[in-house]
Order: sequence, then structure tokens, then C-alpha cells
Amino acid sequence: MVKEIMADSLVTEEKGVKVLFGEFVNMDYLFCYIGRIIYGESGVQNIYILENKFWGRMLFINNNLQFTSRDEFIYHEALVHIPVQASPKGSIKRVLICGGGDYGAAREVLKYPQIEEVVIVEIDPKIPKIVEKYFPQLLPENSKDNRLKLIIADAYDMVKQYRKEEQKFDLIIIDSTDPDISETGVTQELSHSLFDVEFHQMIYEICPKGIIIQQCATPFTMKNILIKAYKIFKQVYPENEIYCYKANVPSFGSDNAYLMRCPYPDPEIPKWKEIPNTYYYSYEIHRSSFGLPKFWREVLK
Amino acid sequence: MVKEIMADSLVTEEKGVKVLFGEFVNMDYLFCYIGRIIYGESGVQNIYILENKFWGRMLFINNNLQFTSRDEFIYHEALVHIPVQASPKGSIKRVLICGGGDYGAAREVLKYPQIEEVVIVEIDPKIPKIVEKYFPQLLPENSKDNRLKLIIADAYDMVKQYRKEEQKFDLIIIDSTDPDISETGVTQELSHSLFDVEFHQMIYEICPKGIIIQQCATPFTMKNILIKAYKIFKQVYPENEIYCYKANVPSFGSDNAYLMRCPYPDPEIPKWKEIPNTYYYSYEIHRSSFGLPKFWREVLK
Repeated sequence: MVKEIMADSLVTEEKGVKVLFGEFVNMDYLFCYIGRIIYGESGVQNIYILENKFWGRMLFINNNLQFTSRDEFIYHEALVHIPVQASPKGSIKRVLICGGGDYGAAREVLKYPQIEEVVIVEIDPKIPKIVEKYFPQLLPENSKDNRLKLIIADAYDMVKQYRKEEQKFDLIIIDSTDPDISETGVTQELSHSLFDVEFHQMIYEICPKGIIIQQCATPFTMKNILIKAYKIFKQVYPENEIYCYKANVPSFGSDNAYLMRCPYPDPEIPKWKEIPNTYYYSYEIHRSSFGLPKFWREVLK
Repeated sequence: MVKEIMADSLVTEEKGVKVLFGEFVNMDYLFCYIGRIIYGESGVQNIYILENKFWGRMLFINNNLQFTSRDEFIYHEALVHIPVQASPKGSIKRVLICGGGDYGAAREVLKYPQIEEVVIVEIDPKIPKIVEKYFPQLLPENSKDNRLKLIIADAYDMVKQYRKEEQKFDLIIIDSTDPDISETGVTQELSHSLFDVEFHQMIYEICPKGIIIQQCATPFTMKNILIKAYKIFKQVYPENEIYCYKANVPSFGSDNAYLMRCPYPDPEIPKWKEIPNTYYYSYEIHRSSFGLPKFWREVLK
């Protein structure tokens, strides 16, 4: 029903059509928002921006919420500061972000003056443009930060090329949409190839001694994603270097999972002794993020 | 709209009317469930039970979700095992539950054979009856456990009487609906009196050396409840005995807060060295529950 409304009234003006917008978490379970669609288009990916009184601006790709202006800081701070602070201070110089064309992860990474280069490889050229216009808060603090490089390409191909060129990174962040890993194995999401063994084998080659982190959706509603990603991590990385942690991003409905390959000991202990400006992340959150519910542990076996 | 549908077709049979049921989290933000209303009534409290494919059975009081059969275990295990395990083994013999007529908290408490008496004081006589019929999983494992006593009364009045009788408890659990503490101070919920200073002063008298725990809703969407409860705790209990912890109950949308007065040192360290049968609670969850987001800490000042 939502899709019909949108097809009839596609808008790109900021005074968008007022709708009851439903996001299907599950067949019989939706998050519904009253608001205005201020941007909508159907292309390689279906992208919509909704403006809602509680959440502010909300970006949907293929009817899956990516982030809201009210709580994106939680998702991005957990994605970046936990791996960075788990490494010895100064050990991360060069960072690769696969996906992450919304700049949010880059914004957090660039808060560390010790980090020398950040490369975003985003498949969809529209995402950075949309964010620049509608979500300026996600942009790096210094808009002319010349440590940042944005490449429009498939991260899978780019990583293949980096491997050929024997390039190396100290931290690789896989910040993609949730893959569509249903029980039947059907897949539609572009991010699917970032959740397979071959991709991780290449990632491991260009980041042999660094940290690799992958967002793995909300296990309570999408258990398969974490299960599949964990299986792949175990195939590719040493088992004693694999960790899982969580963050509660309220607009996602339940705790988000992050899988991490970390070759440094005790990643649950933050190492840097100083934190840049954050709103969610602190050392108590760092340590407690690694404490998982018993029913998550059953899945991580 | 939901209310109109229900008024037209109030049902008490298990083959209820199929609806799109909306729960207002906020003015412009709803959780929507497709399902059947298998029980509905308007009385002292408005009570509805919805059957939904994802959540199973869901109990709503005054259009606020109380629990679902799929994830109530998280809420109840966090409510009970954290305070019990924070106390030295064997120190808790007598437990008072204010509210909690759904038996869920009692079920968890009774898992400890060392606990000798559990009293539930529930204001609404319909809640226990509804749970007995529609949510048998919330009942204590042993249905004839003679350590359990159910009293139908206002917990405020009952606590007043216990104080007069100089009765003492080792653990008091305040397991109520969320009070309606809006910015304008308007209140409609029965639970309101369990969130005031006089109530806590009486609680302190009947539990001078024990643990007191109060559920404080989800601060991300209902910050005022935690702020108000924390202010009251600071007025009544020694400040160095006040702790806050969190649990992610997926059907609540964001992390739930629990305030605890605990006179024992280091409550974040579990003390019992053994855990009864649980699905969410473990020692890693115990320790990590006390790690709060930076923006919660700003509120707890």
C-alpha cells in the first residue's frame, strides 16, 4: 500500500506528500511513521527520505531504514570507536570503508588526527549526494579534510584491485545495507557479495594484521545474517581473533550486532586513554558492548 | 481508528477479529501489528490481547504493550536475576512484588529454592486471571508453589499496612506499567503513585537493608520517567547505593532502564556462582548491563 502511494506521488521537493509510511520488520510486524516523503526515487536501489517529528529525517533504501538523524550517531560511533580503541594507539593509519557512502563512519574515523587516510568505496553514486543535501550532520567536521577519498565503485571489485596492487589497510569497515539472507537463500540486496567467503579472503589479504569489522543487522529479527557472517568469519579468520559486540540503535528496534576480527589481545579493554567528541561512546559502553545475551551466544557456536 | 474497530467488535473468543493494531510510541511514530484481538475489554484499565505471527501473544494495557510471549523472558530475567545475584547468596528470603500480577517476576524469583516467601500485590484482579488463561508460560514452574502469595490490592495501601505492622522484606520489586509522566505533568496511569517520594519512603522502611528495584521504561522515547524516578531515589536512598542498568527488550523498541537501590558493594559483580535455568541472563550479561550510553549518564546527574 505504501508503495502504491509513492508511485503516484513521487516527489523531490522538500514539501513532500504526507503519508503513513510502513517499514516491514517482518510479515506481520511494521514500524509506522507519520510524516512527509521529501525525497523518493526508484533506481538501482529504491531510496526514500521521510521527515518525521520524532526521528527527524529518515533514510530508507529498499524499504529498510538505514538511519535517522536522531540516532545515527549510536550506530556509527559503535561501528568505529570500538575497533579503533581496541587497537594500540597509533596503530591505525589507513582505513577502508566498504559501503558507508553516507559518510557517517568516515566522520567518526576522521575524529582521530592520528589516522592518515580514509577511503570510502560506495556502489551507489546517489547516496553521497543525497546525504550532502539532506543529512549535512553526517559529513566530516572539516568539509575539506584531505585525508578522505570517496570512490564510486563496487567494493567487491575495488578490493580485488587493491589486492592485485598489494595495497594494505589497518582497519576495514564493512558498512553495508543488510543482505537479504532469507531461509530460502533468495537475495536481492546489492550488499550480498560483501557477505561471502571470497570477499573476506580478499579483505584478509589487504588487511592481514589489522581489524576488520562488519555490521550484521539485528539478530532478534534477522538471526540468519549474524549466523551466516559468523560462519564466514570462522572460515577465513583465526577463531580466537573473532569477536561480536552489540549496540542498541533505537530506530532499528532491537540490538544491532557487529562482527570483528581483531588480532590485538583483549579488545574489550579500550587502549587509547582518550576519546574524541562522542555522544554515545564511552569507556563503560566499550567494555559492556561485548556482553551478549545468552540466546545470542547459542547462535555464535 | 484502532479503538473504533475494537468498540464495534469486542471479542473474548480465541478466534478474534483481524486488525492492523497500532501502538503509539509517540505522536507520529507507531508500532503496528497485523493480528487477531483475542481478548478485549475496557474497565479500570483497557486490556487487549493480540495474537501476532512474529510476537505470539501480546498484552496491551491502555494501548501500551506490557509484554509479548516471545520476549517477556528478557524483561523479567533482567528485573529479577540482576538484583538477586547482586546480593550475597542466601541473603534474600522474603520478596515483595508491587504490581507484577502477570506472575513473570514471581516465576523468576521462585527459581531460587533459597527464597522462602514471595508476595505479589496487584491492583487489577483481571491481570492474573487473564495470564492464567492466555499466557500460561508466565506462571511459576510449580503451579502449587506454596511460597507464593497473591494479594489483590493497591500496592501503595498494602505497603502502608506492612509498615504499620513493621513487616520487613529483603527484596522489593516495583513491576508496574509505565507512569504517564508527560512534560505537562498530566497523569492517567494507575502506577503513578508507585513513582512518588512517599511511596519510596515507606518502601525504605519495610526494606531498610535489602534491595529495591523499579522498572523505569525506555529512556530514549520516555526520558522523563527515568529522570523523575532517579530524582526520587536520590531523595530517599543514599546516593552511593543507587545504580541503573539496562536490558534490550526488542518489543519495547529501545533499551529498558531499571533503577536499583543496593546496599551491597559492587552489584555489577554477580555473587551466587550458580544460575537457575535462564534464556537471557548470564554472568556476562549481568556485568555488561551496568554499562550505559553516554547520553543516559547525562540524564543521571
